[in-house]
Amino acid sequence: MAERLLVIGGDAAGMSAASQARRRRGPEDLNIVAFEKGRHVSYSACGIPYYVGGVIEDADELIARTPEDFRKRGIEVRLGHEVVEIDLAARRVRVLELDGGRELIEGFDQLVIGTGAVPYCPPWPGADAEGIFGVQTLGDGLRLRRALDQFQPRRAVVIGGGYIGLELGEALRMRGLEVSLVERAPQPMSTLDPDMGEMVADAMREKGFALYLEETVEGLETGDGRVRAVVTDRRALPAELVILGLGVRPNSGLARAAGLAVGPESGGIVTDLRMRTAAEGVWAAGDCVQVFHQVSRRPVSIALGTHANKQGRVVGINIGGGYATFPGVIGTAVTRICDTEIARTGLNEREARAAGFDYFTSHVRSTTRAGYYPGGTYLTIKVLAERGSGRLLGAQIVGREGAAKRIDVLATAIWNRMSVDALQMVDMSYAPPFSPVWDPVLIAARKAAEKLGEERAS
Amino acid sequence: MAERLLVIGGDAAGMSAASQARRRRGPEDLNIVAFEKGRHVSYSACGIPYYVGGVIEDADELIARTPEDFRKRGIEVRLGHEVVEIDLAARRVRVLELDGGRELIEGFDQLVIGTGAVPYCPPWPGADAEGIFGVQTLGDGLRLRRALDQFQPRRAVVIGGGYIGLELGEALRMRGLEVSLVERAPQPMSTLDPDMGEMVADAMREKGFALYLEETVEGLETGDGRVRAVVTDRRALPAELVILGLGVRPNSGLARAAGLAVGPESGGIVTDLRMRTAAEGVWAAGDCVQVFHQVSRRPVSIALGTHANKQGRVVGINIGGGYATFPGVIGTAVTRICDTEIARTGLNEREARAAGFDYFTSHVRSTTRAGYYPGGTYLTIKVLAERGSGRLLGAQIVGREGAAKRIDVLATAIWNRMSVDALQMVDMSYAPPFSPVWDPVLIAARKAAEKLGEERAS
Repeated sequence: MAERLLVIGGDAAGMSAASQARRRRGPEDLNIVAFEKGRHVSYSACGIPYYVGGVIEDADELIARTPEDFRKRGIEVRLGHEVVEIDLAARRVRVLELDGGRELIEGFDQLVIGTGAVPYCPPWPGADAEGIFGVQTLGDGLRLRRALDQFQPRRAVVIGGGYIGLELGEALRMRGLEVSLVERAPQPMSTLDPDMGEMVADAMREKGFALYLEETVEGLETGDGRVRAVVTDRRALPAELVILGLGVRPNSGLARAAGLAVGPESGGIVTDLRMRTAAEGVWAAGDCVQVFHQVSRRPVSIALGTHANKQGRVVGINIGGGYATFPGVIGTAVTRICDTEIARTGLNEREARAAGFDYFTSHVRSTTRAGYYPGGTYLTIKVLAERGSGRLLGAQIVGREGAAKRIDVLATAIWNRMSVDALQMVDMSYAPPFSPVWDPVLIAARKAAEKLGEERAS
Repeated sequence: MAERLLVIGGDAAGMSAASQARRRRGPEDLNIVAFEKGRHVSYSACGIPYYVGGVIEDADELIARTPEDFRKRGIEVRLGHEVVEIDLAARRVRVLELDGGRELIEGFDQLVIGTGAVPYCPPWPGADAEGIFGVQTLGDGLRLRRALDQFQPRRAVVIGGGYIGLELGEALRMRGLEVSLVERAPQPMSTLDPDMGEMVADAMREKGFALYLEETVEGLETGDGRVRAVVTDRRALPAELVILGLGVRPNSGLARAAGLAVGPESGGIVTDLRMRTAAEGVWAAGDCVQVFHQVSRRPVSIALGTHANKQGRVVGINIGGGYATFPGVIGTAVTRICDTEIARTGLNEREARAAGFDYFTSHVRSTTRAGYYPGGTYLTIKVLAERGSGRLLGAQIVGREGAAKRIDVLATAIWNRMSVDALQMVDMSYAPPFSPVWDPVLIAARKAAEKLGEERAS
């Protein structure tokens, strides 16, 4: 008789797991059912800001596969189904049909928990008024765009200057709104160091954003059930639209209630490298898990589609009888706000201190192309390296077109525990339309290596 | 008394060495004189095609530093001076003043040989006619552009489909000439495998190049001292302008005549990792040396500005009392012809066979951005990996805007001897304007890892 695989959550992690498992085991051997409480599966959450901004006209473009596509591949998808309890002893889950309210009990042999993340939402009075949006699911994105089209708001306040806040802020600017950003930290993008974040702040101001930094939101003003203003510790900012971009945390409550371990620091479900929980046949993947940070050596939770995809694939291969592991992360991320590209990998200064590293930093400003070749842009690279060994610990890039993707070279170097000394001599590509004779990454490594040499000598 | 450093050749390698040595040792300690037989020092040879094509209007933009700049930093530069003999025993060189023909004898304590490369030029009758150009030095580039302005030729033939041939071919197309390419191999860019080179051929034909592949040039037709046609084994191609792009070889004759070792395979001067020749205080760097290929484990000579720069720097640091090494190359290169980007690193199939590797290949076609995000382009990545271990041996990319620079990630992976298995899980950056959720490099590694798994299983 066929084994039964249940998947909780129909996005990147869960559906990648289901697809991989199906590739390796046919329907006669493995029955697969995925429960998704929302109305869509397998979409690009990272694409939502571009749909909101109108870069992408049709939300369907964000959907990689429909429930019908999965059905054809022998994977049953049940939309509007929320799993509300996992019973590990009885090996079954309790599922709520959101339309109609019927409850189902479904047994499993294998279970994949891919419940994703939930946005932080402080308990402000009025937070449920019209015009306030957290943007986590495609449904949220559809509602936001509908509100933009319908109410034509002019003034928006984005609360929180992380990736989501910035990307949605850009989307609203593109649609012509006045956009204010409120951020508690001294600069946006607090995953960058302050000196690099300041470059982002400058670029945003140049694009017409109003920045209210080092301000804390204390509440919201509403009237007739609609938001009217965001109240900070210093002022009231009128707004017809408010975006909550305060970050997310792993949606691990269901797993925790079932008795599965959740990391005290990360809040994510604990798994081994094969993405197994401690319970036989129970796997977890995506934004709801904790992963190993290869530089800090600490468990972290990082909500990113690329990790969710890889982890889901690892789960599916393992359920399918193969062997795969997810080796962890190093905190690589990239984004763009208007024409400013921003990227980071490894540890920033705060993280390096917390992890106990004795480090130094080095900055370079260079160009994406040979100085004499038209169309090049400036970029700044900051690197963190360990004192003594010169091991590369982290890197940050702020620049324009052609700058940010260079972070992948630095990420690959960190992944391989390279020193800045070794990195400066790597055989990277050079031609005038592509880089100066020393690529900016090589210059960054060289400058850091010089500093290392001076410190050793002194 | 100050030591005396003589530098033979005033381009990337020689002048980098001089600059680094000067940074570390003042004029009271080290006297530095550079002899350059041409009229320019310290220019970007790689930028010449863009000057010829008119992308760069003023040739001065290609010059990083003038002799006067060097003089101010305490480095004497003598243009129009050709070193014609090195006497290692007497520790002196014989120098010919090209204007006037006077001969000088100059003694040295330290000597840097940076004599560069010379273009292959077959002994065809008529090869000295007007209208025939090898483009190696800035002087060559100036003469070519002058000829274009003066004679307004309409038809050009480029002989040889390597980097220089392609880049100059593009330059001539940009100036509106009809350009034919004659290449002995079945496709241009023979540093790529034939399947990838064919994509380059298609792109060139689309841009109006006439390709004559698998044809061998047998001679030139001239009249009134000017070139009239290129004669292949199959036809005569009328031409008012002919570009010789048959590659270069290390200009190591001077060193060889002095008794220094020259590699029998590579033709380049033999040095150790610190760029020392076997003679005390005699160093060599740049296109004239042989270097160690980290994948094939063989000595090779590769004429590239980025290597020359790094090697010159290594020499200068060592002469300056520091310690630096050049660890070798892995054959990374990048170019662009019209809007087609081309890159490679590591070994191609021919090279992998020659080096005795048992390898397999894998191809992927992907996009530079998320599929739904506007402005993305297609790219093809081919990887070579070792059977059994899965070690990444080489990679090639053909695509458009945003494709080629991804080669640096693959180069860094090869540099660190990564397997395709390990590479597929590296934490690379992802956001829709920058890549699909799996970056094309990760997809390429993943597909190769899958193939590896299947081969292991079978």
